[in-house]
Amino acid sequence: MGRKSGPERLGCELEPVTYSGFQTVAAVTNLHDLLAEWAATDDAEGRFASKSVQALVDAGVFAAAVPVDLGGFGVERLHDITVITARIARADASVAVAFYMHIALAWYFARVVRFGTEQQSHGFPRLQWLEAIGGRSMLLCSAVTERGADYWNLNTTATPSRGGWIINGRKVLASASPAATHFYCRLKASIGHRHYLASAMIPADTPGVHLDNNWDGLGLRGSGSGDVVFADCPLPENALLIRGEWGRRDPRMLEGRAVSGLGLNGVYLGMAEEAHDVAVATLEKSPTGRRRRLSAASVRVGIAEMEIALITARGVLAAALQDFDAHLTQNGPQALSDQMCHGMMKVCQSVSFVVERAATDVIDHAMRLVGGSSYAARHPLARAYRDVRAAAFMLPYSPPEEAMDFIASAAPVASSMVEE
Amino acid sequence: MGRKSGPERLGCELEPVTYSGFQTVAAVTNLHDLLAEWAATDDAEGRFASKSVQALVDAGVFAAAVPVDLGGFGVERLHDITVITARIARADASVAVAFYMHIALAWYFARVVRFGTEQQSHGFPRLQWLEAIGGRSMLLCSAVTERGADYWNLNTTATPSRGGWIINGRKVLASASPAATHFYCRLKASIGHRHYLASAMIPADTPGVHLDNNWDGLGLRGSGSGDVVFADCPLPENALLIRGEWGRRDPRMLEGRAVSGLGLNGVYLGMAEEAHDVAVATLEKSPTGRRRRLSAASVRVGIAEMEIALITARGVLAAALQDFDAHLTQNGPQALSDQMCHGMMKVCQSVSFVVERAATDVIDHAMRLVGGSSYAARHPLARAYRDVRAAAFMLPYSPPEEAMDFIASAAPVASSMVEE
Amino acid sequence: MGRKSGPERLGCELEPVTYSGFQTVAAVTNLHDLLAEWAATDDAEGRFASKSVQALVDAGVFAAAVPVDLGGFGVERLHDITVITARIARADASVAVAFYMHIALAWYFARVVRFGTEQQSHGFPRLQWLEAIGGRSMLLCSAVTERGADYWNLNTTATPSRGGWIINGRKVLASASPAATHFYCRLKASIGHRHYLASAMIPADTPGVHLDNNWDGLGLRGSGSGDVVFADCPLPENALLIRGEWGRRDPRMLEGRAVSGLGLNGVYLGMAEEAHDVAVATLEKSPTGRRRRLSAASVRVGIAEMEIALITARGVLAAALQDFDAHLTQNGPQALSDQMCHGMMKVCQSVSFVVERAATDVIDHAMRLVGGSSYAARHPLARAYRDVRAAAFMLPYSPPEEAMDFIASAAPVASSMVEE
Amino acid sequence: MGRKSGPERLGCELEPVTYSGFQTVAAVTNLHDLLAEWAATDDAEGRFASKSVQALVDAGVFAAAVPVDLGGFGVERLHDITVITARIARADASVAVAFYMHIALAWYFARVVRFGTEQQSHGFPRLQWLEAIGGRSMLLCSAVTERGADYWNLNTTATPSRGGWIINGRKVLASASPAATHFYCRLKASIGHRHYLASAMIPADTPGVHLDNNWDGLGLRGSGSGDVVFADCPLPENALLIRGEWGRRDPRMLEGRAVSGLGLNGVYLGMAEEAHDVAVATLEKSPTGRRRRLSAASVRVGIAEMEIALITARGVLAAALQDFDAHLTQNGPQALSDQMCHGMMKVCQSVSFVVERAATDVIDHAMRLVGGSSYAARHPLARAYRDVRAAAFMLPYSPPEEAMDFIASAAPVASSMVEE
Repeated sequence: MGRKSGPERLGCELEPVTYSGFQTVAAVTNLHDLLAEWAATDDAEGRFASKSVQALVDAGVFAAAVPVDLGGFGVERLHDITVITARIARADASVAVAFYMHIALAWYFARVVRFGTEQQSHGFPRLQWLEAIGGRSMLLCSAVTERGADYWNLNTTATPSRGGWIINGRKVLASASPAATHFYCRLKASIGHRHYLASAMIPADTPGVHLDNNWDGLGLRGSGSGDVVFADCPLPENALLIRGEWGRRDPRMLEGRAVSGLGLNGVYLGMAEEAHDVAVATLEKSPTGRRRRLSAASVRVGIAEMEIALITARGVLAAALQDFDAHLTQNGPQALSDQMCHGMMKVCQSVSFVVERAATDVIDHAMRLVGGSSYAARHPLARAYRDVRAAAFMLPYSPPEEAMDFIASAAPVASSMVEE
Repeated sequence: MGRKSGPERLGCELEPVTYSGFQTVAAVTNLHDLLAEWAATDDAEGRFASKSVQALVDAGVFAAAVPVDLGGFGVERLHDITVITARIARADASVAVAFYMHIALAWYFARVVRFGTEQQSHGFPRLQWLEAIGGRSMLLCSAVTERGADYWNLNTTATPSRGGWIINGRKVLASASPAATHFYCRLKASIGHRHYLASAMIPADTPGVHLDNNWDGLGLRGSGSGDVVFADCPLPENALLIRGEWGRRDPRMLEGRAVSGLGLNGVYLGMAEEAHDVAVATLEKSPTGRRRRLSAASVRVGIAEMEIALITARGVLAAALQDFDAHLTQNGPQALSDQMCHGMMKVCQSVSFVVERAATDVIDHAMRLVGGSSYAARHPLARAYRDVRAAAFMLPYSPPEEAMDFIASAAPVASSMVEE
Repeated sequence: MGRKSGPERLGCELEPVTYSGFQTVAAVTNLHDLLAEWAATDDAEGRFASKSVQALVDAGVFAAAVPVDLGGFGVERLHDITVITARIARADASVAVAFYMHIALAWYFARVVRFGTEQQSHGFPRLQWLEAIGGRSMLLCSAVTERGADYWNLNTTATPSRGGWIINGRKVLASASPAATHFYCRLKASIGHRHYLASAMIPADTPGVHLDNNWDGLGLRGSGSGDVVFADCPLPENALLIRGEWGRRDPRMLEGRAVSGLGLNGVYLGMAEEAHDVAVATLEKSPTGRRRRLSAASVRVGIAEMEIALITARGVLAAALQDFDAHLTQNGPQALSDQMCHGMMKVCQSVSFVVERAATDVIDHAMRLVGGSSYAARHPLARAYRDVRAAAFMLPYSPPEEAMDFIASAAPVASSMVEE
Repeated sequence: MGRKSGPERLGCELEPVTYSGFQTVAAVTNLHDLLAEWAATDDAEGRFASKSVQALVDAGVFAAAVPVDLGGFGVERLHDITVITARIARADASVAVAFYMHIALAWYFARVVRFGTEQQSHGFPRLQWLEAIGGRSMLLCSAVTERGADYWNLNTTATPSRGGWIINGRKVLASASPAATHFYCRLKASIGHRHYLASAMIPADTPGVHLDNNWDGLGLRGSGSGDVVFADCPLPENALLIRGEWGRRDPRMLEGRAVSGLGLNGVYLGMAEEAHDVAVATLEKSPTGRRRRLSAASVRVGIAEMEIALITARGVLAAALQDFDAHLTQNGPQALSDQMCHGMMKVCQSVSFVVERAATDVIDHAMRLVGGSSYAARHPLARAYRDVRAAAFMLPYSPPEEAMDFIASAAPVASSMVEE
């Protein structure tokens, strides 16, 4: 499943647009066969893909967004991050999710450092973190989601204690948690009677950090997305950053979620591309494949619809990434108007729907083209069918069932509807 | 319905990428309100939009692709041609079709001249043609289609006569024919017992040229797409170009059709954008609109789905145009491998399906959002509903019902299927 | 397009289930060719199908629901009424709508008379009306809808005057109004300071009744669905029936709307059946049809999808009609629990969505199968494409954009959501 | 999840239409909770649902189609068989498949016996079989499918040997095989140089019968659908029935497959009904459910679309079953014209597509309504998502990818296409 050349390049296929992106993709490609092999066994046994993650860490892929002088590949474009993610997903969607949750944070830290904005001067030691990631000694887990709570209602708390903080709470869907050295959390910090939305970086070896290792999903079984519990975890002061007053829904926070949400689509794009290739390869090698292609109308239409769905996912994602990168390279973080932030989230959501639907369609067609053998529990397409379903629940907007309302509210007609 | 700024730019909206494109779009925008007004009456009376075409000719828009020193705007990018077409379609889809049929040829002539390829040295006087178009004295009608015949089976003939040719035949769907000064034809030239596929440029004032003015379509009623008849039309020698042996399906001819087919999607994109804006404006101004928006789930979801469909059309088209332009600016005409030509046509077809479906969806949602008043015969959305249906029959591949088979056959799996 | 026999009977095709239904269908079938011919010209000229309506009146079809001893066919089953409507729609959807608006009322009057419920004893002289319809001297127009007002908010008023009433108001979408002898209205009756929802039967020759003849729709152009104005129309006392207090949304009124809404689907079913037959006949007679069928995958899949959509519309409608008829033959009018009324409307709405979507699909496939010639303004499929669009705006629930909310609210999960 | 009453009955819900059907359904309902509980564990462990099958056998459900005087419930209507299957599927789709594969055969044997056709007089001892099934001592496994072979190309052979036959071959997807006492096979019988299509009833305790117990599917994990191998299995003469010459595609064989294919849809209908109920119950009990319903547009539309999809599956299946039963009660087996057989198979295929799509939609909506918790490996909806996928590969026509071509070929347009 190596890279295509020639006419395929016209098919809106996403290729890296920078040299650093190209290098990282090459590193992933080298590992493809190994990752694909491990993907099958990790999925079958329902265990975290630790070997695959380690191999990517060793190859520097987890340091993709770290500047070159700090030991990384120096990838700056969201487009390239997305392509790297898609290439990992071709081998193992679980690993791609684990990778993306880490890289989205690392990439954002690098962006803040690059723009040298005031956030950098105080608060988080982002430069050191990038150095640690570049040195393969730091791997991030995004521990944001809580059971039964949406993005703005969190039960994880930070309370001041001896010049630092004490953290308590439980996070779910903490992808890559078994390999994480640090948990990047969103929580509610309380100082006296005042409450704030805050972020915290909690080292995995902090006393009171506990992994439940309870991830048992329909798909993405190797992503290590179990619960992480914080029980009276002590944290130094600069490991926590106050974001704003509790309860205030700052539209500027939509920007970060929109950016990270957009790149996540790389996971589903990669899955779709792989499913397409599996179906095509199966038809090619099948003794009866050629005859079936020539005789069965639904096979021909299925191949064509698979191509159409694939070009849809690629084209829409490529176009949106280009627009986002144009903005991201010109503007520093959180320098946008509220309207612009809503606009970015609307685009991110819309593109996510398009990619989810297209990827689901490609996998559906691929299974039909391959036939009954794709219904075997361990068939790559059976895995893809389970994995891709996660897209319905990993929408960038929270809660996901309100995504449609958000898009509608951010449309011109209803800009005044955004009372959220 | 002026240009958007700010967050909308993130919505993958297509904007000109060159200054010449920008200038031409500005010229179209100036005429928008006038064109929109005439569109309604031309459609109602089912007559060719001659005033609108003339206004665009006067403003130099029909010379968009002509080099600046020959009196045009010098637009070279297919992307910009497509954007211009979309902007015209926002006011009048019929005129956009008439315009595109002309500009696709003019743009191609300019491309051949630009690359100075050997075709230029002999055969067609393309430079003079461009000069004439730049001087507003030439307007092209693409007279290719014949009733009941596909692209490769034509009944229009050229036979040698006194150092020139005699043309006989009937072409249908000759958009813009009432305003055309020249008919660019595809036909079968016979010299003795040998037959060739040929192109010919036939001046409208040639003896024997006759327009039936019989266009009476469900939609695109102002496009002037009636029959043109050639009855013993005499033609000088250099007005006809032999393309190759009759019956040989040269894949390199797919390139030109793919390029012109891709840009045609501007028509449907513009229609969809306009339908979206009409629906949004209607909801905005409706006294009960706001309440309906907030209460009816299908209204919210309809708005969101309209946004999603629009970003789909825009993103896929933008991405494909960028790939095509990258190729077109680097390679001369017909310098591609057969496989590459198939690839371009596959992309063109796939994108056309995506845009057709998306535009149809947007118009469907727009009508539902506006409600029963959009069912009035003269409502802009009722016109859009009729106009957009043409997309199903204007596919770049011929015959259209085999488009799916072509995409399937050009997919990797079935590259060997193309021999049929 | 006569009746099918043999294997087609397995395709869930709707056939009359009573002898009276069979007789009426036969009367329609006799007129089919004539109606189809007139349909084309009435549509082209945008005029009311008066000849067709008269022909059906003469043949007794408008008296279908009138008991045999009063001069009608005595059709009691909603199923049969729907089948009759579908058969008319095969020739002319406009006439089918005009017919249905009349027959739904006539059928309901016959039902009330049949059950001898108390409504009959006072108020409306339904038996006389049936007698008049049976005698071909009465044709009903349902004048309910008002511009910008939903089902519960009406601006047409009745005020007491000299032992009777004075009616003022304007109704829109009054199908069959040019042929109507009576207008059956929904309005607001005021007695002193008290207001009531009321129905009234207004003879067309009442002073102050005026037709605007302003119907100019995208489709259903022969249905005569223009405005009717009542300007100080005097009405005798027994021509008006108080339904209940103004502002109270009596769920029992949902029953009547559900019943009439369900049968209306016959219009779209008939259109779909005709479109299917037109496409099949065109392919059959086309010289190249056979080759195309055998070679183009999308043609084969299109034929199959057309069959699938058709069996969907037929099956769902047949099953729902059977359930409704089982209920209607056992229970008198308005004898149901509120929950049951909601259930009936939910079913009616859901079935209407299914039939609308299926009919739209069939017509879409039919046009693609026939190809570009179906895009001619006067092609039967171009007419079907315009006509079927009305389905989106003729939903039984009012306002139509809240239909989805109604279905959701009537689902088990949300029975308590019905606060309306 | 007991039976609904009241308004739900209008929702085209399938209820038994005979007393014997009603009794069998009651027997299933009694076991529902137990079956549902075992379903979860059998699925989790990927083992055959032997306890559930045994419970249904003990309750007489596997004898549903056996005449009352032979110990069964005497169910004759295909409609009722389908309803029984759907009710089992509400608890466990795997068991429903295992049940249906057995009951379709048993029901057919009873039908042949009922009509006393000549097949009965010679060949198979169907009466004894029914007696054995009624006595709970016989459970059938339909062993027809072979890997890589379609319905007409089989590699399992029977050769004459000492007054009987010797069977060799391997069958796949032999649902219920672990519990089967007999394997009902389709194979190729050779007598000298002549070859025949034949059916054989092979007792499980025949020497040479071997189960691989290798079923490991994405879904239907409890259905016991592994391979069965026949290695030199001796068979008495009357255990094999010659069907016709080898290679001749007798259209009359389509009848049996159409009938059994139609009823199989009960499995998917039951799954969809259960998924609907799970989603509704989850929303009901969720503390935030009510608020979400009222605020999120996609939730409301999701509920409504679920209702629409459900009524589609129910309505189409109910209507087709009624048509089939009308035919089956009037005509003996294989008494139909070829055209009629094609018609039945077309209907069966079309209905199967409708039900597959509707069930898939319902489960999709149900998961979205329930949210991320439905993505847990053991959630009933995660199981439904895996189970329902089987529908794509269990189409009644073989090979499934040609189902669309079959429908197209059986449509009026293309009746002459069937010769291929």
